[in-house]
Parts: sequence; structure tokens; C-alpha cells
Amino acid sequence: MVNRELICPQSIVVVGGSNNVHKPGGRLVRNLLDGKYKGSLYVVNAKETDVQGLKSYHSVQDIPETEMAILSIPSKACVEVVDVLAHQKNVKAFIIISAGFGEETKEGGQLEDQILHTINEVGASLIGPNCIGLMNIHFHGVFTQPIPEFHPDGVDFISSSGGTALFIIESALSKGLRFSSVWSVGNSKQLGVEDILEYMDRNFNAATDSKIKMLYIEQIKDPDKLLYHASSLIRKGCKITAIKAGSTESGKRAASSHTGAIASSDSAVEALFRKAGIVRCYSREELTTVASIFTLKEVKGKNCAIVTHAGGPAVMLADALSKGRLNVPDLNGPIAEELKSKLYPGAAVGNPIDIIGTGTPEHLATAIDYCENRFDNIDLMMVIFGSPGLVKLYDAYEVLHKKMEECRKPIFPVLPSIVTAGPEVQSFIKKGHINFSDEVTLGTALARVLNTPKPASTDIQLYGVDVPEVRRIIDRLPADGYLSPEETRLLLKAANIPLVEEFTSSDKEELLAFARKIKYPVVAKVVGPVHKSDMGGVALNIRCDEHLLFEYERMMKLPGVTGIMVQPMLKGQELFLGATYENKFGHIVFCGLGGIFVEVLKDVSYGLAPLSYDETFSMIRSLRGYPIIKGTRGQKGIDEQQYADLIVRLSTLLRFANEIKEMDINPLVATERGLFAVDARIRIEK
Amino acid sequence: MVNRELICPQSIVVVGGSNNVHKPGGRLVRNLLDGKYKGSLYVVNAKETDVQGLKSYHSVQDIPETEMAILSIPSKACVEVVDVLAHQKNVKAFIIISAGFGEETKEGGQLEDQILHTINEVGASLIGPNCIGLMNIHFHGVFTQPIPEFHPDGVDFISSSGGTALFIIESALSKGLRFSSVWSVGNSKQLGVEDILEYMDRNFNAATDSKIKMLYIEQIKDPDKLLYHASSLIRKGCKITAIKAGSTESGKRAASSHTGAIASSDSAVEALFRKAGIVRCYSREELTTVASIFTLKEVKGKNCAIVTHAGGPAVMLADALSKGRLNVPDLNGPIAEELKSKLYPGAAVGNPIDIIGTGTPEHLATAIDYCENRFDNIDLMMVIFGSPGLVKLYDAYEVLHKKMEECRKPIFPVLPSIVTAGPEVQSFIKKGHINFSDEVTLGTALARVLNTPKPASTDIQLYGVDVPEVRRIIDRLPADGYLSPEETRLLLKAANIPLVEEFTSSDKEELLAFARKIKYPVVAKVVGPVHKSDMGGVALNIRCDEHLLFEYERMMKLPGVTGIMVQPMLKGQELFLGATYENKFGHIVFCGLGGIFVEVLKDVSYGLAPLSYDETFSMIRSLRGYPIIKGTRGQKGIDEQQYADLIVRLSTLLRFANEIKEMDINPLVATERGLFAVDARIRIEK
Repeated sequence: MVNRELICPQSIVVVGGSNNVHKPGGRLVRNLLDGKYKGSLYVVNAKETDVQGLKSYHSVQDIPETEMAILSIPSKACVEVVDVLAHQKNVKAFIIISAGFGEETKEGGQLEDQILHTINEVGASLIGPNCIGLMNIHFHGVFTQPIPEFHPDGVDFISSSGGTALFIIESALSKGLRFSSVWSVGNSKQLGVEDILEYMDRNFNAATDSKIKMLYIEQIKDPDKLLYHASSLIRKGCKITAIKAGSTESGKRAASSHTGAIASSDSAVEALFRKAGIVRCYSREELTTVASIFTLKEVKGKNCAIVTHAGGPAVMLADALSKGRLNVPDLNGPIAEELKSKLYPGAAVGNPIDIIGTGTPEHLATAIDYCENRFDNIDLMMVIFGSPGLVKLYDAYEVLHKKMEECRKPIFPVLPSIVTAGPEVQSFIKKGHINFSDEVTLGTALARVLNTPKPASTDIQLYGVDVPEVRRIIDRLPADGYLSPEETRLLLKAANIPLVEEFTSSDKEELLAFARKIKYPVVAKVVGPVHKSDMGGVALNIRCDEHLLFEYERMMKLPGVTGIMVQPMLKGQELFLGATYENKFGHIVFCGLGGIFVEVLKDVSYGLAPLSYDETFSMIRSLRGYPIIKGTRGQKGIDEQQYADLIVRLSTLLRFANEIKEMDINPLVATERGLFAVDARIRIEK
Repeated sequence: MVNRELICPQSIVVVGGSNNVHKPGGRLVRNLLDGKYKGSLYVVNAKETDVQGLKSYHSVQDIPETEMAILSIPSKACVEVVDVLAHQKNVKAFIIISAGFGEETKEGGQLEDQILHTINEVGASLIGPNCIGLMNIHFHGVFTQPIPEFHPDGVDFISSSGGTALFIIESALSKGLRFSSVWSVGNSKQLGVEDILEYMDRNFNAATDSKIKMLYIEQIKDPDKLLYHASSLIRKGCKITAIKAGSTESGKRAASSHTGAIASSDSAVEALFRKAGIVRCYSREELTTVASIFTLKEVKGKNCAIVTHAGGPAVMLADALSKGRLNVPDLNGPIAEELKSKLYPGAAVGNPIDIIGTGTPEHLATAIDYCENRFDNIDLMMVIFGSPGLVKLYDAYEVLHKKMEECRKPIFPVLPSIVTAGPEVQSFIKKGHINFSDEVTLGTALARVLNTPKPASTDIQLYGVDVPEVRRIIDRLPADGYLSPEETRLLLKAANIPLVEEFTSSDKEELLAFARKIKYPVVAKVVGPVHKSDMGGVALNIRCDEHLLFEYERMMKLPGVTGIMVQPMLKGQELFLGATYENKFGHIVFCGLGGIFVEVLKDVSYGLAPLSYDETFSMIRSLRGYPIIKGTRGQKGIDEQQYADLIVRLSTLLRFANEIKEMDINPLVATERGLFAVDARIRIEK
């Protein structure tokens, strides 16, 4: 696993290093040299005696003991080389950039297995194979360009894909984003994205480590590990943003439940990111913009001041912030008037604060000072300052630089004149700053950051759920498939989910007696077939004995029917509650209003089990139909607390019953006396 | 108005030109000289005899006759200078860059008025004041930088704001976007955005004019003109994209109708852009990306092939395209296999077509050829090609260049290595190409383009609407306010909108007789007060004489009640139809499902009256609740054609009744026998 030798090796051997910098082995040596690597650097190349000024050994047998080896040789040659390095040269860290392994052929996969075996034997670490390598403050162990600027406060970047990592770095460079480390994990034979994150979490040192993590993930192999360590790092003060590519995979699984039909393979990823507190992005531009936001001072609230010398971009930015549910509060009253009196005629201070095109660097300083010290309803400032090319902007950007150092409130610089004021922007960036060149991209990304919840509590809400009973019920189930109504009732009861009273029989007298006892109107449903309603197996609003008898006679003739179930006809708002199981992720729990809300409008929200109350209330409140739950149009709402209780308890039940693959409680009816599950279907696979 | 002298002046005088290129007057002269202006160039400066190598006249009195004057002098001096130039020097085109006019003070506004009067007297044109100027293929009449590259096929760009125009150009430069003209209209004293567009439309020459228009608009002063000429240009083969800044103005007007509460000031803009076929953008980055898309070959369909040498960006792009309802069709079968056999092992052809990192320029050419000639289900190609820095990309980009020239299908180049392969990307752009550096930004923008409708038909659907009767009813209305039920009925009848049968009286016997005639159940509503339902003035589902009598007695005691109206109780899906009047834009017509759909879920769509059938069906079908209209969950749908008829006819009625400021038909009930308006409120202002 990750060790000191991988992060800060005292010596490195490049196996396959060469003089040709247009080949990976040559470029690797060049990058290490250009990066002023301070340890001992060796090269192994059978055909050369001198490689870029370094002595070249003809065989790995010949080199001294070395901490790290970077291999850029054909895949077939790697097995033996690793063996020698691991067993004879005490190498404790391997980076294998060579391709031709498991990503291409089965034989390649076997080579990987052998290599991993050797490396694990000696307790060494492995990055790759099939990657671009690893670079950080200590060394640039990659065969590619560009090499970004490194700084302890920069971004720790871990990527599933080397090529994509490069293109993400390209997008970061123009913003001035600096890095602390860049990890390309390739085939992740030993170390994957989750493992690097685990290392960063377990060894986190708040004084020295970067607090910004940026991830590009193609496949989440270990969701639990990602969730655990991402949440943990965020609780320790880190910020994490990530792309999970492949979010709209069209291939939907065949699903027999409502929930199954709604859930996509992306729901699990979305739910996991939200639970962990990871800011999810969908493009390189977004990802590097969010990471850039992370480099600035902590944002304490959603109230933004926009300071500008041009109206248009400020208005577009204000639009983007409002769309993202951030505030651009009005600034008025005596303090605003005082600020206005210090600016040129024509300036506006209502927010945006427009110091107008001829506004001076002093005006900029004044406007920032007022936002910092005088306006209480401002949490952060966005400063838009470009140039029509008449004068240089060094003075203005020096003001911005100083204020960004001094002010407690974060300042987001938007410097749009990247060509006309190119040198000034570059000089500003060289001082360690970020430039956001498009204000709307910034506004949208900031909204994404501020609308991402904190990591959810990891406590499981056990109250009200009889876990041993849940296990007993599940364990004694004989086979895969749908639970019987009786088993379903028992399971829901174990999680304290209230069920509508019901009685099942094939005897008409018993059914009539029950109906009279619970009082008409009642509902009758066939027992047996799965798709009851499709075959006329459900009769609502039965108001008298005659009506019930008529339905009894009709239903008992339907194919496969073994009996009739009678329930009271509940009146109230229909709700929906369901879950699907996603391999390795666990259960995604869905909630929403019933009927057309779930089936036509797809108005559901979801989260990863087990759910905390915070997560659950936020799920309920993010429904478009939430006003109906709260009560609207003269209608009383429903008991939101009880709905949340049921969702939380169901999620706890599921946490201990991975055998449940799909389930619906549909409808769950909110009556005057509380919520009752009226119908439920549960499918298990053992 | 716009004339030849404004667009291609044979001679220009810069009044206030100077030697100081850090001042507007000096920079203006420099830009004209740097732009190699071919006509006669004069400078007027009282203090100089030589300005940047040109003879300087001490007074405008001294210059020869000149076609265009660009003024960069204090606002107060402009009036007299314009007078001399217009009346004595035969100047026919003015660009006034000076500020200090109507945008600052009332006195400034009066100066503007005087100047406009003089200019109109001699039939000259005026750009400004308070602008950066005008630049095109013939001359660079601006005091600012950057100056983009000009080309007859470039973009015609018209901007309300000079500063914003510059920042938009900055964003265009990095993509390689070229311009045909840049207009900054400033205070738009004579010529505004709409007027320039009008000129371009009336004088459109398909052989010589650019077909790409890009607009930045802060205020739409003449919506009809914008709509008319934008649609007309698009019908002539142009493409238009625009930003209208200020889309989320929080200040919602007080509204007394449902529609009023839903409509925002942005609805009108959105409806107008859609009707015109303008692609709406919200950021500089989006705007210049859309304009860049317009420079490529015509996109004939929504089926995209992604050709790449790196998996990650291709997957992110595929996600973005799917989200935007474009297709990335599977490529398989013998042709796909054949293509695969021509690429390196490990390549994938399923779409994305991944020629892998080591893929050669020849592989790129092959993949493009297959998409162009062999795959029938591909309409366009997106090519992602960057570099890890080992080799130069000139060969690959030469392939791309040639294929973009040769292929009938459009090719979108995404060249992400803007730093590492910077020189190669620049050389590619120099050949006249665009580079989209972020694939997701491109994918999102392309979806925006392909999802924008064509301009709507301008025919007014008169069938079924008795326009003279509409006018008679409106004209005889005595005062502003809500129409009485009787007037409302007459008006809706004139548009052939079916109304539920009803009878109003204060005589209980008459009401009972009517109820018996139409058959119970019935509805009773008070006549008089506006907010009936708030005061218990509506009783539904009255099933017998006794019940009706009871309600009669109760209702007649409510304050302000003058009578009771009885209607049959209709059963069916509730629909909603409404409209608001937006100053200068006309009526925005809203449709949707009734009840919670409109009040809680705000699920409405809208368009600008008068509506065509295409627009109306597209409105109905874009409702989230549309499946209910179509029929879902075993429920029959509603008569969509009749709903469309009613919407179209209502929009025609409104077109001839601008006095109607707000109206709701709520509900409109879809019964077995057709749609009937059950309740309607109409407010007029004369």
C-alpha cells in the first residue's frame, strides 16, 4: 500500500530510460531532471551508457539498492525486472507506466497478477500499470506534459485515467490552479483512487497536507471505502470535488418495481457523493473551477456582493447566482450612500456595485473595504475587473492582491481580459492567485459548492427497528423472489412501519365479518398473483355486504388466486417509499408523493441507506410536491416527522437486510390518524 | 438610419484624436492606422499639428468634406461639432464614443436630443453616444482592445454594452472565432440592437453577408422589431444567438391572477426568443461556443459520433449529449468490425470510437472516413485529440483540417492540450478553424442549438374567432377592472371557447328549476365578489333541491353578493389556460394541467401570442404532466387537438385585445363530451 518510498523516494531508477525524449522512457528521465529531483537517479538501458547525462546501467542487476522504480519497458519484461528489483534491490515503490496488461489481453492480466504477487510479497507499493505515473512536490515521475506548478497548498489530484488527467491539468493551468500531487492510477492493480484517498485520510496532517482533493473516477470499485474516507477527510477540514464519468448510461436494468424503474445506475453514485459531501462535477471546466474555489478563503454564507467596472458581466453573474439559490442582497441605506459618494458619478452601489469603466484602483479598494467591514449582509465578494486596453491593470490587480490577503471574507477574482491584459493577469496568477475568466461558470460552480451538503452522520438510527427480528425473518425465507403478504407484514412490523389492518381468507363469511368489524367502505385484493391491478384484482370503495360478495365471486375466478384480502378503505394523501439495491453501494431509498407524482412526474428524491434524519428531511423537502406535504391550497399537510421516521427506519432495516433487492411501499397513506402502509412488495435474492 | 457611409466610409475624421494612445482619442487613431484603413483619415485636435503621423486640423471648420466622424471629445462640445459636421462638411455617419449624456444626467439627455435632431435633419446615421464604436472589415472605429480578426464569414456581433462586448470578444479569441462586424450601440440614441438587425435583414445579401449574428442585449426596446427581423434573417438562412442579461430579476409584480403569479418578466423574453428561433445563452462562454458551432457545416440531425484518443473526455461528452437529448448511437455490425480491424488492438468502435492514446493520424483519418461514408446513422462527428507531449500534433491536425474541408458531415474539433500542444492548436486555428477546448461545454451548447425551434409561422389563425365581435365587446366596456361573468362569457364565445352551461339569478325558484333541468349534481357560486373561493362562495357537488336551497340561503348572506350562479358539476381532468400582457411584447399565453399542477408544481408552458399550431403542440408536449394529457395509468387522455384549438383561438383573441392585461380560464374541464371553461377571470386596462 502507499508508503513513504512512493511519496518521497530518496532514490529512483528509471528502467527503460532513454535519450529519446519523444518516447516515454526518455521523457520520464527528462521530467525528473527538469523537476530538479534531489535524490539519487539511476537509469537502466541495455543499449546506452549515458542517458541525458546520467550513467546508464545495462541491467537492473547492476544498480545499487533503490527505493523507487519506474518501469517503461514492454509488459512481458516487467515480471522479471520487478522480481529482481523487489528481492535483490530492496525497491519499495513501483510505478509501471507500460501498457499491454489486463486492459488489453487475458495474458496481460496474468502478468499483472504475477507482478502484484511479487510486490505484495515484499510489502512494496504499486501505481499502475498502464498509467502516466505520479508527480508531486518531491519528484515528477510521469512521462507526459504538461507539468503543473506544485505547492503544498495546491490540489491533490487522483485520476483513473492518465489522458483525462492531462486534459484536466490543461484546464487548470489557465486558471492558475496549483497542485500538491497528481496520481494516475491506471489499471489500479494494487492502488486505486479509493486506496490513495484512504492513505490521505489515515495519515492526514492538518499542518502540512493539502486540504483540497480532486478526483476523476471512471468506476467506483469500493463505494464504502470512498464514502468512509471522503467523509472523514471532509470532517477533518478537507474539500473534495469529483467527476464520475458515465452518468447517463442508457442501459437501464429490467425492473419489476416502481422504484426499479425510476432508479438509474447513476442514482447510487449521486447518493453516495451527496452522503459523503463530495461536490460533483460533470466537466473538466467545472471540476477545475470548483477546485479553484476551494483554494480561496472559507465561504461562510450565501450572500454575495458583486464589485465590477462593467455592468453586463455583473448582471449575468447575478442571474447565475440567483438560479443557484445564492443571494445578491440589495445594498442600500446610509452606508451604501456613503460608499456611492466616494465613487464617480454614474456609479451604482445597489449590488452589483458598479464603479464604472473609468473607476480607479482606489475605488476598487474602497468598494472592497465597504463589503469587508461595513455591509453586514455580505459573506463574500466577486470582483470583475477587465480592461479596454487603454491603461495597464497592474495597479488594480495589486489592490486586488492585497485585499485578498487582508480580508476575512473571500474574494473571487474574475479577470476577463485574458488577452488584452494578459501580462497583468499572468503576473496576478504568479502571486499564487486564481483567475476565473468566465463569471457565469464561477457563479454556477459556487452554487454547486454551497448547495452540497456536509457529510451525513454515520450513526445508524436503531430506535424502533428490531434488527434481530429482521434477520430472523430474512434468514428463514426459503428462496429468492417476492415475499408473501404475511412475510412482508412481519418485516415491516419489525421496523415499526404501521400497516393498514387487513384480513386474508378464502372464506366469504369470514371476510364479511371482518368487513363489518372494520366498517365499510373497504378494499378487496386478490392474493396470489403479483400484478394484481393489471388483472382487475383490486376493488376499491366497497360499501356494503352485497358489493363485497359480488367482488368475492368475481375475484375467486381469476387465475392463480388463492384468497381475498380485505382492508379498510383509507382516505388521505398517498405517499411512496421504495428502495433498490445497487451492487457494492447498498440500498438507495426513494421517497415521494404517490400516484402520478411518482409514476408520471418522477418526482422522487433518494439517498443511500442508512439515512440520518438530516438527510431524510432534506430528501423530503427537495420534492417538487413538497408544498403538498407541508399543506397547501387550504388542505392540511401530512405528518412530516412521521414520514421521516418511517423513511429512516426503513433505511435501517435495509442496512441489515442486503438480501432485499427491490421494494415498494405504494401507497403509504397519510390519514388523520397517521401514516399506514397499504400495499408493499419486497423482492429478495439470497 | 444605417447607411453605406456608416459601414464603409470613404473618409473618416477623428475629432479629439491625439498622440496619447492611453486615451480614447489617441487609441482610436492608432486602431484605425493599425487596421490599415484605406480611406482618407483626418484628425481634429486644437493643440496638435501632427497626430500619429497624420495632419491635425485645429477645428472641424478646417477639414474637407468627410463621410464619417468619430467623436471623442467632452459631451458638451459635441452639439456644436455635430452641427458643423452635419451642415457644412456633409458628414453622413457619426460615431460618438464620448460619455456624459443621458446615461448620467438629465442635461446630458438634452444634449443627446439636440444632437439627434441635427443628425436626423441631414439624414445621417448615429452610433452611440457612450459606446466603444464600430469595427468591421473596412475599418476599426473603436477606442478599445482587443481587435479580433475580421473575415466576411465571421460573426456579426451587436452589443448593448461596450465593456461586455470586449469581454465577449476575449472569450471568442481563444476559440479562434472570427468576426465580420462588431457594433457597440451605447445609449442607442438613434440606432439600437433591433435597428441594426433590421438593416441587416432588409439589405441581406446571401452571397456576401455573414450568416451568423451574435447579440448581447440589456433591454429589448422594440420586441416586435426584434422578433420580425430575427425570424426573417433566420428564414433567409442566418443563425442567431443572444444573451438577454437580467433573466432572474427578483422584483415580481403584484399579480391578482394565477397566471400573473407564475409569469416573470423573463417569460416574455424567453417566449420571444423561442418564437424567433434565437438560440438563447446565459454566459459569454456559452454565447461564443454557440457562435462557434454556427461557423461549422450545417448539422442535419441529432446523431453524434465521438472520435477520440482518450476515453474520459469522450464519456463526459457522451453524458452531456444524452442530457441534452442528442443521440450517441451504438455502432456495431460488420462495418464497425471492419473499422476496428484497421485500428490498434485495444481500440473501441462502439461509439465513442476510441483509437487509443497511441493511435496515429492515419487512424484518425480512417475513423472519420467511416463516420462520413459508412455509418448511415451518424449526422456529425466530434473529434477529441490532445497530446501527452511526446510528439507534435501537426500531422494529426492536418488530417483534421483536410477532413473538415472534405466531409459533408460537420466535424467539431475538441483540442484540449491548449498548453502542451499550444503551437499546433494555434496553427490549426490560423487555418480558419475553431477549437472547442472543453468537450462538455461544446456538447451542452450543441444541445441548446439543436433544441431551439425554427422561427414560428407568422400567420394568425383566424378560424373560429369572431374578431369584430371581440372588438365590439372590448370597445363597449366602460372601465378598467374585471369583466362581469356575462361579459366574460360573451368574449370567450366570440373565440369559440366552449363554456359550461350556467344560469345566474337571485330568485331561488328560477335556480331550482335550472338545476333540475341540467340535472344534479350541480355547482353554486356567488356572483359579485372577486375572490369567491376565499369566502366560501363556491359549493361543489350539490346533489338535491334541499342542498341547493341550503347553499342559496347561506350564500345570499355573504357580503357583496348580488346573485347565485348554478352550473352542472363537470367531471374530468382539470386544465389551465391563462395569459398576461407584457408591455410592448404583447400577451404570453400559459397552458398546463389544473389544480396542483399549476399551483404547486408550476408545471406550465408558455408562448407569445398569436400562437401557431406548431408552437401550441410543442407547449402542450413540453409539460411534465403531458403523459396525463396523452392518457396514462389506465386513464383515458384528453382531446389534445381540442385543447390546442382553444389555446390557439385564445391567443388570436388576445392579439386583437391588448386591453386584456391578465386572464385565467381555471379550470377548463376535459369531459367525455369535450373541453368546457368552468370559470374565467379577465382583467382589462384601457
